[in-house]
Amino acid sequence: MTAFRHLKSVIRLNELAEDPYDLTKEGAVTPKRIDSMLSEAVGFKLFYAMERVSEITLSTLSELAEEVEAVKKMAEMQNGEIVNFISGHESENRPALHTAMRDFFESRNTSAHAKQASELAYKECEKLRAFLNEVEKKDQFTTMIQIGIGGSELGPKAVYLALEAFCKPQRCVHFLSNVDPDDGAHIFHQIDLEKTLVVVVSKSGSTLETLTNEQYAREKFKKSGLNPKNHFLAVTGKGSPMDDPQNYAASFYIWDSIGGRYSATSMVGGVILAFALGMDRFLEFLRGANAMDKIALKADPKANLPLLSALLGIWNRNFLTLPTTAIIPYSQALSRFPAHLQQLDMESNGKRINKKGQFVDFDTGPIVWGEPGTNGQHSFYQSIHQGTTVVPLELIGFRESQYYDDIEFQATTCQEKLLANLFAQSIALAIGQHNDNPNQFFPGNRPNRILFGSRLDPYTMGALLAYYEHKVVFQGFIWNINSFDQEGVQLGKKLALKIIDQFASLNQGKSLDLKGFQLGAAYLKQIEFID
Amino acid sequence: MTAFRHLKSVIRLNELAEDPYDLTKEGAVTPKRIDSMLSEAVGFKLFYAMERVSEITLSTLSELAEEVEAVKKMAEMQNGEIVNFISGHESENRPALHTAMRDFFESRNTSAHAKQASELAYKECEKLRAFLNEVEKKDQFTTMIQIGIGGSELGPKAVYLALEAFCKPQRCVHFLSNVDPDDGAHIFHQIDLEKTLVVVVSKSGSTLETLTNEQYAREKFKKSGLNPKNHFLAVTGKGSPMDDPQNYAASFYIWDSIGGRYSATSMVGGVILAFALGMDRFLEFLRGANAMDKIALKADPKANLPLLSALLGIWNRNFLTLPTTAIIPYSQALSRFPAHLQQLDMESNGKRINKKGQFVDFDTGPIVWGEPGTNGQHSFYQSIHQGTTVVPLELIGFRESQYYDDIEFQATTCQEKLLANLFAQSIALAIGQHNDNPNQFFPGNRPNRILFGSRLDPYTMGALLAYYEHKVVFQGFIWNINSFDQEGVQLGKKLALKIIDQFASLNQGKSLDLKGFQLGAAYLKQIEFID
Repeated sequence: MTAFRHLKSVIRLNELAEDPYDLTKEGAVTPKRIDSMLSEAVGFKLFYAMERVSEITLSTLSELAEEVEAVKKMAEMQNGEIVNFISGHESENRPALHTAMRDFFESRNTSAHAKQASELAYKECEKLRAFLNEVEKKDQFTTMIQIGIGGSELGPKAVYLALEAFCKPQRCVHFLSNVDPDDGAHIFHQIDLEKTLVVVVSKSGSTLETLTNEQYAREKFKKSGLNPKNHFLAVTGKGSPMDDPQNYAASFYIWDSIGGRYSATSMVGGVILAFALGMDRFLEFLRGANAMDKIALKADPKANLPLLSALLGIWNRNFLTLPTTAIIPYSQALSRFPAHLQQLDMESNGKRINKKGQFVDFDTGPIVWGEPGTNGQHSFYQSIHQGTTVVPLELIGFRESQYYDDIEFQATTCQEKLLANLFAQSIALAIGQHNDNPNQFFPGNRPNRILFGSRLDPYTMGALLAYYEHKVVFQGFIWNINSFDQEGVQLGKKLALKIIDQFASLNQGKSLDLKGFQLGAAYLKQIEFID
Repeated sequence: MTAFRHLKSVIRLNELAEDPYDLTKEGAVTPKRIDSMLSEAVGFKLFYAMERVSEITLSTLSELAEEVEAVKKMAEMQNGEIVNFISGHESENRPALHTAMRDFFESRNTSAHAKQASELAYKECEKLRAFLNEVEKKDQFTTMIQIGIGGSELGPKAVYLALEAFCKPQRCVHFLSNVDPDDGAHIFHQIDLEKTLVVVVSKSGSTLETLTNEQYAREKFKKSGLNPKNHFLAVTGKGSPMDDPQNYAASFYIWDSIGGRYSATSMVGGVILAFALGMDRFLEFLRGANAMDKIALKADPKANLPLLSALLGIWNRNFLTLPTTAIIPYSQALSRFPAHLQQLDMESNGKRINKKGQFVDFDTGPIVWGEPGTNGQHSFYQSIHQGTTVVPLELIGFRESQYYDDIEFQATTCQEKLLANLFAQSIALAIGQHNDNPNQFFPGNRPNRILFGSRLDPYTMGALLAYYEHKVVFQGFIWNINSFDQEGVQLGKKLALKIIDQFASLNQGKSLDLKGFQLGAAYLKQIEFID
């Protein structure tokens, strides 16, 4: 594959970027532009009239997708081919089969690998349904704590909060992730252990934070005279140290081909979401994700929403050279969705080598961040409108509220006010404002797009999650980087273990070996653990 | 004042930035460097050996502070001189007296303006103490909902979560900010109205979201047969439409000289924090902030922690040209503190004109974001270590936990594991790692500093809050921009009102005036409100 910078379409896009579409010009943004720069799928509309693109930019971006065979690679991924690799170097060398975790509905993938993965995943769903039916019958458990970190927390928690309005009554869930003992203390100070199930989530069964927090939680149960075995569940790889009926009331399986940040639709999200929402709503969530998976296979970017979004993101990142992207849901229920997307994007595409193991000479994944609107408007929007660093926005909105509990105040509802703000910001950021008072001058040309759905429900949330999974993966395909590994987290882990060893020696009354990890010792000395 | 780019120190810093200190070189980072690049105040140590600075860089940064008279301007601000202005143009033209809100302790400011502001603020504290004593006696109220947005939510909520471990038993608080009706519905579905006080916070009494949510809340009380007047409190300007004993059980005052994002130590944070923590702990929080205010007046940057941090930030932003800053507390209790700092920094310094009304030709406030560690390590740290955009980190840590509820697991406590990770990341990011496998190559030179305290308690939290307030203000002084206004939020508001009017006409059965705000109408048409 030709390196990114030498692709024909990339050379052309670099030329186009010298004079990008100027949204602030008289007549540049019209109702007609809004009507025509619009794609639809799975009940969502993607509005992109406020991006700095012309029709020529868009067709050249399409050529980019074709040149790198982005959709063919998406099909290969969904078929279970090996996509997680770096050639010529030791690497994980495996497929990325998260789409198989929800391929239980219409027109299933028929390739052998994908089919087998789906069948195994469906078995876990059936096991989970049976288990939850027992829980229902017993009527003992009202609370579930998920112990897990990274993808074992962020995705499931974001989805749980997004769908809290659809929870079963009297079900309450918590997520324990941080090795900070105050995280656990805060949760355990407010729950009734007898009514509590704990799901421990770790594919390898070896994540430091998760093992530590599991131990922390088990001691709470023991101290209360309860047998942890009756309260603890495992979500782990088959045959891992955690796959042990001596210690857990049940085990649910995940597989090497499911990366943590892509695991919300597997048992990693499944156990806690199905406990909270009920199994049928969890399946609706999977159905929505599956519907978006099919959209990601469409050849035409205008019909393929995640691909279109990926291409617009690449335009902003590599050609307009914008270093960050903010994701702003105009929906309070999506308050933690940006944190999930931050992991999904930055851990997948925050890379500096391509799949051939060569250092790249272009920018990869941006810094992703965000908070809900309208809240953000009263916080960082000052900088978004008038700051010196331009931030492209991905806005998310829904026509209807979740609770249908609204009032009319000064002739409009809360929901209408929310939407008015969403659309007004999209327009204001694009067109700006001239003014003789320099403090009231708005430069405009702040690119943004809106993903708009009818209502945030389990099906919609599934589709939304998959939309972003595929957007990120498409960008990785286009850059020819491996979006499925995370070697960049290893060095910190390695050095942390050295300092943990230093703490351990001190705890055993030994003096610190200052010739060992000297820099660690220097910090420890300063915080007065040693003299 | 000489424009930023023409300052002597800035010219020198630009030269130094051509060859910044290389942390990855053999012998560049030593225990000695850690010991010497360290400042202390108010129980905090600021470690900055992992910044890309030499002693010459540091002394030139000191010269920059002197050249712009940063500390003199801080004194002027604390004395109540007018610092919120743009000369030659209409502007707010007022002092910024948030430090006076907590100047009740040793060596008080004696300037007339500051003194008067402190006296007024203290009166409100006394009023609040009396009010809360009555609440205590009555024993009716266990829950408080704060309705406010921007600074009326982010700071108070971040501080509340930081200090939840110190809350009075059986006190529960919520924050309602978003105009999204699901934000209110979610809160009101879980509380007992009879036991609930609602504090409405708006300086002007005219914030759209806050007025709407107040109405939303009042209707809940009315529907339950309760008189809202007995449950509602106002935090507002004296004489504002909300300062009305007909509608509120009590009013607490704030003043024009207190900007929303600087208001957590005023009654904006005071009512809800004192309700949750008790008045004495709230005063401890103010005492900590006040102690840091004094530190901000020290001439030597090595003794003036917020100034030192501001200068290091400017080195990273303007000379190493890094567009974002991540704030990573290794403390789960500080989970929402980065969101507060995002507003504080980006709304204060995300500006494009200087105080003379001229467009600046350099970068102002960075994009600020962050999540707690160790969680971030399992999320975006891949990109922090190996991504193509370098992100400087501000790390925060504490020697002790809040709950003192910890376990020993594999020879170390959770708290020790947490700290080991903090220090290990600081070192790993700076020094990097060479490796023949390109995927295991870490470029290093990722600048970071650590602010380290003994334990996160009310006093420490006050100092931490003020540290960041002053850091941001110092950067504004150095850039000569106005850190106290927010004109950049006006355009979006203006266009939102136009679309709200369009919704209102539709609700009244009128057809949409397509000649009116055409772009708004185009969006509305697409979401099927009109045909």
